[in-house]
Amino acid sequence: MSVVLEAIYTRRSIRRYAPDPVPEDAIREIVRAGMNAPSAGNEQPWQFVIIDRREILDGIPTVHPHAAMIREAPVAILVCGDLTLETKQGYWVQDCAAATQNMLLAAAALGLGSVWLGVYPRDDRVTGLRRLLGIPETVVPFALLPVGHPAEHKPRKDEFHPERIHRNAW
Amino acid sequence: MSVVLEAIYTRRSIRRYAPDPVPEDAIREIVRAGMNAPSAGNEQPWQFVIIDRREILDGIPTVHPHAAMIREAPVAILVCGDLTLETKQGYWVQDCAAATQNMLLAAAALGLGSVWLGVYPRDDRVTGLRRLLGIPETVVPFALLPVGHPAEHKPRKDEFHPERIHRNAW
Repeated sequence: MSVVLEAIYTRRSIRRYAPDPVPEDAIREIVRAGMNAPSAGNEQPWQFVIIDRREILDGIPTVHPHAAMIREAPVAILVCGDLTLETKQGYWVQDCAAATQNMLLAAAALGLGSVWLGVYPRDDRVTGLRRLLGIPETVVPFALLPVGHPAEHKPRKDEFHPERIHRNAW
Repeated sequence: MSVVLEAIYTRRSIRRYAPDPVPEDAIREIVRAGMNAPSAGNEQPWQFVIIDRREILDGIPTVHPHAAMIREAPVAILVCGDLTLETKQGYWVQDCAAATQNMLLAAAALGLGSVWLGVYPRDDRVTGLRRLLGIPETVVPFALLPVGHPAEHKPRKDEFHPERIHRNAW
């Protein structure tokens, strides 16, 4: 089995973290993985906010209903779509999602745990994070990834549903 | 360097394919990688159409303006969003994009080449593919991935733009 396929099948959403700090190099590598995602016409419409100040991390659950675990995380990365960078209208969401998936795989490959907390298209989360972090109106908070050393372990996922596969016609 | 990170940095959009057939096992593995993507509330709103009949592949460029390379590809996979499976409103696009990115990485890991051809949200492409493949109105053609043995080789991409990284505030 390819190491890459194995990584895809074993990556899980990790919501509990040890208090140990995450090395700056690892965070940089996770963001770099995001930046190497494909995008429509190579528009790369993304921006990233690394959050490691405790009081800001602790403020996030007040603007995101499913982010309580972030009080335990040493760091989080907010993936944003920059509408001023979109050259192929309507594709920034897909581009940012591809970047986010790369980042989750990179975190797991580095022995770290993370989880995709959906932000866009929930207006209250978008607005709340914009205000908390001083993000301009042309930039849309898209997904939030707490990152930490895993304090929970989950088995391989291995989803396979042959009934979802069609051939040459529906 | 982790094999997974290396895979993320070396994956490229491959648009030229050798005529050799792609083993059925490889296609199944690529789809399985898609099915193991994370999704909002684990809704897994995806469906997949494997296209390997020559006359259907050759018809695709008539409904998609950037799909000429599919005449060379032995097989293609259409990722679709099934609106009847969406439980977290507004997230099916992100979920399908995460699945698509997993599939591109899986194809590369298997030594195959592919490229993300955007379908949704372009109405003409969505409608044209629906008609060509008999896809119901509740299912949205999302992205099309030709798959073949690579007949072009591209260098490592290695995008990194530190000016896109912000810390604790914009």
